Amino acid sequence: MSDPDAPTSDAPSSVVPSTEAVVELLGVLAYGHLVAFDTMAADARLAPDLSRRAVLCEMAAGEIANFGRLADRLRELGADPEEAMRPYVAALTAYHRQTQPRDWLEGLAKAYVGEGIADDFYREVASFLTSPDRELVLEVLHDTRYADFAEHEIRRAIEADPKVANRLGLWARRLVGEALTQAQHVAAEQDALTMLVVEGSGDLAGVGALIRRITSAHTERMTAVGLSN
Amino acid sequence: MSDPDAPTSDAPSSVVPSTEAVVELLGVLAYGHLVAFDTMAADARLAPDLSRRAVLCEMAAGEIANFGRLADRLRELGADPEEAMRPYVAALTAYHRQTQPRDWLEGLAKAYVGEGIADDFYREVASFLTSPDRELVLEVLHDTRYADFAEHEIRRAIEADPKVANRLGLWARRLVGEALTQAQHVAAEQDALTMLVVEGSGDLAGVGALIRRITSAHTERMTAVGLSN
Repeated sequence: MSDPDAPTSDAPSSVVPSTEAVVELLGVLAYGHLVAFDTMAADARLAPDLSRRAVLCEMAAGEIANFGRLADRLRELGADPEEAMRPYVAALTAYHRQTQPRDWLEGLAKAYVGEGIADDFYREVASFLTSPDRELVLEVLHDTRYADFAEHEIRRAIEADPKVANRLGLWARRLVGEALTQAQHVAAEQDALTMLVVEGSGDLAGVGALIRRITSAHTERMTAVGLSN
Repeated sequence: MSDPDAPTSDAPSSVVPSTEAVVELLGVLAYGHLVAFDTMAADARLAPDLSRRAVLCEMAAGEIANFGRLADRLRELGADPEEAMRPYVAALTAYHRQTQPRDWLEGLAKAYVGEGIADDFYREVASFLTSPDRELVLEVLHDTRYADFAEHEIRRAIEADPKVANRLGLWARRLVGEALTQAQHVAAEQDALTMLVVEGSGDLAGVGALIRRITSAHTERMTAVGLSN
């Protein structure tokens, strides 16, 4: 009832987001989807069989459909999708270069961890937006099918060989560390989006609470697949 | 009027294809779509800008939608899609390993040449099938959007630098040579499909005419983008 980290309200925020902030947000979301497509398509090659490979390819295809919706909305807002995505290329490229999965399970764990955190963040930011961007952002969040599939595969692998939990746990910590490093680079450069998060959260204490909510959801996801945080 | 290579009739062939032949055909088509997805997704990274990269990703996603339709039909026919695809893995992997594009244009030319020939072949074989497989095969042939896009990019590159025509012409010849080598491996092992092609064509002379039609369509496509054969 009195959780200090709970968002103050589910009602639309009183902050009116600037078009600049919305373009920055849709830009990072669009580029994120393009890269997620790419990563899933590459990880699909690590699949132990053709059926699992096909599942991952189909999920990758879903990312591109959502990318198209985001690019359309950017154009509607008078922005060039290419320019809106460009500020995020360096950070996302660095993240993926530092976190190349060596096998099928590392690829799945990476997507499970990374998309879980990203989706939680975007869901929070969506509450600071107005229609139709609010709905669009919520709709392009990753399909839970992917998380369910990854969860099932990771749990099964840990059941078959408990040592896997240790290896994937270390891997997940590395992913989170690298993601935070790159998120800070983005935040330092994308002023309008950063301001929107601060104003939407109320103040810096609100931002701290938002980060704690995202962190605790991450911990729950780790526990759900049998990984210690 | 009396072209000796023209197909004898557009009407459904009198040959009744065996389920085995249909499964072999849908298996190679399904695996071909999975690999085409993979290849386009990888080639998208070679794109000179984010817009072109997105176009290629979107086209790759289309391959997967068609893969899904083929896998569904294989299941309807009582076949396991994974098993139906397995006989083609070695040949298609060898083909792609021997023909890794070094840049964006080589990737586009590879898809333009390879998919053109493959689609012509499948269109011929479709005429030997009965409903609903005949319609399914015709419907999953590659979107002409891709060929149009590749054609436009290749022509533009040649206009900007005529030397490109020579390099891509050599590249296309290598692709065709490698494709023929791998197609022979497949034909040698997939008896039911090979028999269907022979029976559908009438006799070996008919198969020769089919090959000449495919070759001459390939030459036309090469000329259309400004490449000598």
